[in-house]
Amino acid sequence: MRIALDAMGGDQAPAVVVQGAAQAAQQFRLRNDEIILVGDQRLIEAELQRIHRIPKNLSIQHAKDVIGMHEPPITALKQKPDSSIRKCLELVRTGEADAVVSAGNTGAMVAGSIFTLGLLVGVRRPGIAAPFPTRRGGTCIVIDVGANIQCKTDHLLQYALMASIFSHHVYGKKSPRVGLLNIGEEELKGSSLLKETRVRMEQLPLNFIGNVEGRDIFEGECDVVVCDGFVGNVLLKTAEGLAETLMHGLRSEVGKGPVRRFGAWLLGPALRRLRYKADCAEYGGAPLLGVSGVCLKCHGRSTAEAISNGIRVAAEQCRYDVNQHIVLGLNASHLAVEPSRAAQS
Amino acid sequence: MRIALDAMGGDQAPAVVVQGAAQAAQQFRLRNDEIILVGDQRLIEAELQRIHRIPKNLSIQHAKDVIGMHEPPITALKQKPDSSIRKCLELVRTGEADAVVSAGNTGAMVAGSIFTLGLLVGVRRPGIAAPFPTRRGGTCIVIDVGANIQCKTDHLLQYALMASIFSHHVYGKKSPRVGLLNIGEEELKGSSLLKETRVRMEQLPLNFIGNVEGRDIFEGECDVVVCDGFVGNVLLKTAEGLAETLMHGLRSEVGKGPVRRFGAWLLGPALRRLRYKADCAEYGGAPLLGVSGVCLKCHGRSTAEAISNGIRVAAEQCRYDVNQHIVLGLNASHLAVEPSRAAQS
Repeated sequence: MRIALDAMGGDQAPAVVVQGAAQAAQQFRLRNDEIILVGDQRLIEAELQRIHRIPKNLSIQHAKDVIGMHEPPITALKQKPDSSIRKCLELVRTGEADAVVSAGNTGAMVAGSIFTLGLLVGVRRPGIAAPFPTRRGGTCIVIDVGANIQCKTDHLLQYALMASIFSHHVYGKKSPRVGLLNIGEEELKGSSLLKETRVRMEQLPLNFIGNVEGRDIFEGECDVVVCDGFVGNVLLKTAEGLAETLMHGLRSEVGKGPVRRFGAWLLGPALRRLRYKADCAEYGGAPLLGVSGVCLKCHGRSTAEAISNGIRVAAEQCRYDVNQHIVLGLNASHLAVEPSRAAQS
Repeated sequence: MRIALDAMGGDQAPAVVVQGAAQAAQQFRLRNDEIILVGDQRLIEAELQRIHRIPKNLSIQHAKDVIGMHEPPITALKQKPDSSIRKCLELVRTGEADAVVSAGNTGAMVAGSIFTLGLLVGVRRPGIAAPFPTRRGGTCIVIDVGANIQCKTDHLLQYALMASIFSHHVYGKKSPRVGLLNIGEEELKGSSLLKETRVRMEQLPLNFIGNVEGRDIFEGECDVVVCDGFVGNVLLKTAEGLAETLMHGLRSEVGKGPVRRFGAWLLGPALRRLRYKADCAEYGGAPLLGVSGVCLKCHGRSTAEAISNGIRVAAEQCRYDVNQHIVLGLNASHLAVEPSRAAQS
C-alpha cells in the first residue's frame, strides 16, 4: 500500500510530518507499505538528515508550492497547481498512491478531493468524521465537522451509514451505536429537518439509539454522532478551546512554587495522560468520508505521533476496503443517489 | 429588593437551594434584600432547621407542586398551577418580588416567563445568556443557549444588544466585545443568514468584533458571543461533557496509589481551582434576557455557592435596571419591534 503524505501541511511542517512518517514507516503494521513524502524536496531531505536511520519505505515526490493554512481554498488550488496537497491527490487519482494524509488547509483538502477524485458512487456529499475521546477510553466519531454546513436529511442519513461502516471496520466496533445530535433526547425536539431525519434514520439498517446531546459524545454513550457541518465544527472548536484553557489553567496553577512543582512531579504520568486526552490534535486524524479515495485530515497542530496515527488509520481504511463497503451499504439501504443526479442532491 | 427563589428546582433541591439562599442572605450586598423561598413549606422548614442561624431576610411562600427536571414544560405548567416555578413568576407579575431565580426545568422557566410576564417592549424573542469561564479569569456570555432554536437575523441582532447591555452593567465591561459565532473568521463564511446578520451587526452601536469561533469563547477574545439556541445549546452541553470527562479522568488517574495521592495532596488548591473552573454549574446562572422581569436560570447541578451567585447576579440585574436599559437600547438602535407585531416577529 502507498500513502501520499502532504509533507508541507500543518503548523510545524515539514519537520513534524517527516518525523511522523519515519515513525509510521518503522511500525510493524506499516513496514510493508510505502510512504511518499510530497513537498519541497530540499526541505524534506534536510529533515530526513536528522533522522538516525531512514526507513527504506520512505520516498519523496517533489512539489514546489504550498497552500497556507489560511489561504482561501478554491483560489489557492487554482493558483498553485503544483502544491503538495494537489500533488498528493493526483497520486491517488492516477493510482500511484492509495491514500492521502494531510495536516494542512482543511478547505483545500476537501475541495481538492472532490474536484480531483470525485465522490463514491451513490454519495451525495462528503463529510469529515472527527474522532473524540470518551470517558471509558474509546473513540466516538462526529460527522460532519465542517465539509457541509447546510445539510439535508439525505446527507445526514448517508453520514450515519458511512461513519457507522468506518467505525465498524477501522475502530472494530461490532455494531456501532449511532446518535443524532439534538438538544434533548425527546422525539419532538429540534427543527423539522431533525425530526424527519430521526424518523427516517430509525428505518435504516443501523444501531440507531435516537437523539443524543453534546455531553453524550464524551460519556461513551455512542460510537457515531451525526450533525450538520456547522454545528459539528462549532462543537469541535469549542471542545478544543475548552480543553486548551483547562490545561493552560492546570499548567499555570501547578507551576506556582516548589511544593506544587514537586506534587506535579509525583503526578507526572497522570498529568501527562490527562494532557494527551485533552489534546484533540493527538487523535489520529479525521477521514473525509464519501470521496472516491482515502483522504485523512490530521489536525494542524499534530505532533509526529498524531501524524503517525493518521497514516495508520488511512492504511486501515484502505486495508479493510471501507469505501467499497460504503458503496454497497448505501445501495443496500436504498440511500444511494444516481450518479447523474449527485450534483443536485 | 425581593428575590423569589424556586426552592424545589435543581437536582439537589430543596437542600442545596435553601443553603444557597442562606449564604446569599448573609452576604453584605444582599443583607438589605429579601429572599423568598418558594416551595413545599414543610420541606423548606426542615432544611432551614439545619442552618445554624437563620437570616431574618429569608421568608417562605408555600407552593404544593413541583415541576420535575424532565417533564414536558407546557403540559406541566398547565397541569400544575401551584408549582413552585409558576408561583415565583406570579410573585414577580404582581410586584411582590423583583426577580426569579430557579435551578429547575429550563423549558418551564422559559415558557412560564413568557406566558406570565410577557416580553419587554420591543423584544422579539427572549434568549438565555450563559456565562463561560475564560483563560484570563473573566466571563464570556453566550446568547442564546436554548430558548430559541430557529433564529432570524432580527433575533440575533437583539440578542447582541441585550447581552452587551447586560455584560456592561452586571459584569462591569466598559465596552463589551461582541462576536458572531461562525466556523471561521472570514466574512464569507457561514449561511446566508449569518452573512446578513454580520453586515447588519456592523451597523449597530456595539463593539462588534466580527465572526468568532467556539475556541474564542475560552480564550477571552470576546465578552459576548451570539448564536442561535440550537448551536448554543450544543456548545453548552459539549463544554459540560468534556469538562466532566477530563475531571473524571484526572480523579481516576490521581487516585492510583499512595505516591500519586500524596502528589495530589500537595497540589490540593491548584486541583480544586481547576475543578471549579471546569464546573459549568458554578457560574452564577444564566439570565433569560428579553422577558418583562428578571429571570435567572441556575444549572440543575448547582451547588449552594452557585445558587448564592445566581441570586447576586439577579439582584444586580435589578439594581442596575438592565431591563430598562435594554428597552431604551433597542429603541435607540431601531431594533425594537412594535408590540402588536411582536408575536409574528
